[in-house]
Order: sequence, then C-alpha cells, then structure tokens
Amino acid sequence: MTSQISGLDARFALAQAMAREAGAVALDYFNRRETLVIETKRDLQDVVSIADREVETLIRARVAEVHAGDGFLGEEYGLAEGHSGYTWVVDPIDGTSPFVNGMPNWCVSIAVLHNSEPVIGVICAPCHDELYASASGKGATLNGKVLTLNPTRTIRNAVTGLGANNYVTPAFVGKMVESLLEAGGNFIRNGSGALMLAYVAAGRLVGYYEPYMHAWDCLAGYCLVKEAGGWYHPFPVEGEQLTKGSPVLAAAPGAIDDLRKIAGL
Amino acid sequence: MTSQISGLDARFALAQAMAREAGAVALDYFNRRETLVIETKRDLQDVVSIADREVETLIRARVAEVHAGDGFLGEEYGLAEGHSGYTWVVDPIDGTSPFVNGMPNWCVSIAVLHNSEPVIGVICAPCHDELYASASGKGATLNGKVLTLNPTRTIRNAVTGLGANNYVTPAFVGKMVESLLEAGGNFIRNGSGALMLAYVAAGRLVGYYEPYMHAWDCLAGYCLVKEAGGWYHPFPVEGEQLTKGSPVLAAAPGAIDDLRKIAGL
Repeated sequence: MTSQISGLDARFALAQAMAREAGAVALDYFNRRETLVIETKRDLQDVVSIADREVETLIRARVAEVHAGDGFLGEEYGLAEGHSGYTWVVDPIDGTSPFVNGMPNWCVSIAVLHNSEPVIGVICAPCHDELYASASGKGATLNGKVLTLNPTRTIRNAVTGLGANNYVTPAFVGKMVESLLEAGGNFIRNGSGALMLAYVAAGRLVGYYEPYMHAWDCLAGYCLVKEAGGWYHPFPVEGEQLTKGSPVLAAAPGAIDDLRKIAGL
Repeated sequence: MTSQISGLDARFALAQAMAREAGAVALDYFNRRETLVIETKRDLQDVVSIADREVETLIRARVAEVHAGDGFLGEEYGLAEGHSGYTWVVDPIDGTSPFVNGMPNWCVSIAVLHNSEPVIGVICAPCHDELYASASGKGATLNGKVLTLNPTRTIRNAVTGLGANNYVTPAFVGKMVESLLEAGGNFIRNGSGALMLAYVAAGRLVGYYEPYMHAWDCLAGYCLVKEAGGWYHPFPVEGEQLTKGSPVLAAAPGAIDDLRKIAGL
C-alpha cells in the first residue's frame, strides 16, 4: 500500500494534530484527577471518568466537521457508520486505570481504517511528551524520529508486554505469564495496551500479547508496529466484528514465532 | 520511633540531595542510552551498564566523605561495613531493564538502616521528575506533598503491583498472578519494584508483592509505605541476611489481609 490513497495525507495530519490537542486536554484532567468522579463499567477494575468522554467528544466532533463522510468508532460512544471508505477508531484514554490512579502510563490512541486496513496509527503519551505517528507507506516515527525494528531482538534478550482483562479467566492469564517465562522471556504490563504496542514499534518491547482486546485498543498500535517493520496478527474489522473483541499480538521480526507459539495464534 | 535518633536529619537531607543529583546523572545516561554497552548478569534478562556503576560510585563516595563511619550496601559493589550504627542501602538504578530498553519506569533508591530498621527511604524517578522522601516519624512526601494512604482502597477497587525474577519458577509467578485475579484484583508490573513500592506510598497502587527481592530493591520503599500509613512484611537485615533475598510485601491498610493470603506471608 502506498501513500497514494486519496485523502490519506489530510487525515494523517489531522490525526496527529488531534492526538496532541486531545493529549493536552487529557493531561489537564490528569493533573486535577482528584476532582474527577470515577465510575465503574463491567466491574470495579473497569473505570471511566468524564475525561474519557470529553476527549472522545472532542475528537469525534472534529472529524465530523472536517470529514463528514467518515465513519467513527470510539470506546465510549460506539460506532457511527460513514460512507467515505474511511473509519476512525479511537480510544480517548487507553489506560484509564493508571490514569485515575495517578500513574503516567496512559495515552490517546487514534487509528484510521481504509478498506479494512489500519492505514493511520497515532498515539500520544502526554506524561512523557511523546507522539508516535504512522501511516501506510510513510513509516513510523516517535517525536519525528524514524522507528526501525532491530531484527536481533528476541523474547529472550528483550522484554515483552502483556495485557489482560476479565474477558479471560485468571487461570488463562496465569498460564500465559508462565509460558512466556518458561520460554526465557520477561514481561511488563504498564496498564495501557495501546502504549505497549507503541513501545513495540519503538523497539522498547519486542512484542505485545493480550488475549482479548477491542479495535480501539490495538489498531493504532498495529499500524505503528507494521510501519516500523514488525508484524501483527490480523484484527477482524468487517461489519459487526469491528465492535467485538479479538486476540491481539504484535511483534518485532525476531519474536514472531515464539510469541505466536505462546499465544497459540 | 521519632526524629530524635542522633544524626538522622543530616542523613535525610543528604539522601534527598544525592537522590536528585544521582537521578540527574542517570537521566543523562538514559538520554544517550544507545551509546551504552549493555552487559548481562545472571541471565540475558538481567542487565547492567556503566550507568548503574557510575551512579552507585557517586553515592558511595559522597556517603564515605560525609559519614565515614556508616556502612554501605549497593547492588553493584556489595557491602562495606560501618561502625556508626547506620547503613546505607542503595540501588543506583532500579529497573535497569526498562532503563536500557528506553522505558521511563526506573528510579534511584536510597535507604538508610538504623538498628535494623529502614529509617530513611528516598526514591527519585527522573523521567517523571518525582522525588519520594520519608524518614522515621517525619512522614512521607512526593515532591513535598504529604502522602497519606486511603483506608477504603482494597485489592478489588485499586491496582496491585507485582514483580518477579528468575529466583522463582515460572509456575510460581503464573500462580501468583492467577491468585490475585481470582481474588478480584488487578495488577501492573512496570519493571521497577522500588518505584512500585513508592507508588504504594503514593496511593497509586494498593500493594506490592514480589516473592524474592534484595534489600536494595525494597528498603527505601518500605520506609515510604510505613510513613504514609501502610504496612510491610519485615525484611531480614541482620548480619549476612542483609545481602540475601527475601519475599517483599507492602500494602495499604485495606489490602493487607488479602495480599498476605495471596502471598502466604
């Protein structure tokens, strides 16, 4: 795929501008998080606040204004179908749990799908002043610096990111940790799957595995990883599947085989 | 214990000044980490660089200069016994793996023991410009703001930190993850045990458990947690035990019973 998809450049520029702007709004909420009302969703560990909603509303309104025919799927307000062939897929704050608890590992994640492919992936990590940006055929950058994965990194000489939620059983999560360690790997889980996927693109992690994630958690990271030279397990985005969960796995070249084996993918 | 231990105030001031200074030196290495030679210790996942050694040397020399009779235990250069009744216990860079891989979750950890108690605990997280400081009877602060734990937080409505290394089996680590999730908990592992202990003191995490840690990884965090109103499982520091590993568990009041059960401590 090349940069010649009509309308890609304008959307890539908008995605980056919005990620920065949304990141600044979210950071302002973060800095006064003690005043936020925290609500729970599926369980006591699944939290949300007005910050998530306001940031999504901001991005949603801006896309509707500039690209009225584009579809839009956000974590907080669901799917609005479009007719331009483009669909924005946004997690306004990925890592809401770190966010509400005062930890810095959260991000704004903005992806754009075209013909079922994530052709734009932009992630802003405001506490670290980092903007990860990628688009099909244009490579991936971190604060403007080109990201290129190192083929010598494996699960044994680098760190793997893991994530989980209560869509999978505790026994399954325990087993996936055990399998990775048994294979000579080491893991972190910083609380934001999207950010850990960006870290894979940046070569900070050699791979990321989560047994059940939604499109808004992974598609921006997937684009980043691919453009940096890595691989990802396809996420189903056709029709209703776009709003459903699926296993997520992304890896640098030297970690693909080991992680596919561990994840059974 | 009160602040009346002779010589405590001077050492507390020195610990804070050194943590800031050492943090700045470490951050400078971090910002040019691509030039560092990374060596491995116990296995490919156990890494060290000149940054760890230089930072420890800096702190060690400064303590020897100002408090020549104090003992000093550092991760990189071991134990030098003293005769003043005080022993400094220092991890120059806790979270070397995140550090060398370009992730921000690492810190400088400085503890001081007196009569087998950690009476000073200072942790500097340079990427986040955070200084955690505590001393017996003086409370705990984060960048000068007093830290006081919230008794309503439990493992079910807050996040727990976990850590592990290859002193314990993959099956044991998998099982501890499973047990925490089964009990309704959620976890992060950001790659720095000392920093996660500081997060317990700051109320960002409700507890921290690692089945095998060394004194330099935990004693500063232990002092912080206690001074913020939390509890810790005692770490053996008498004689040769000081240089050996032991289970580490610290918790906010509402998480103690659940985490002791999970850890079997």
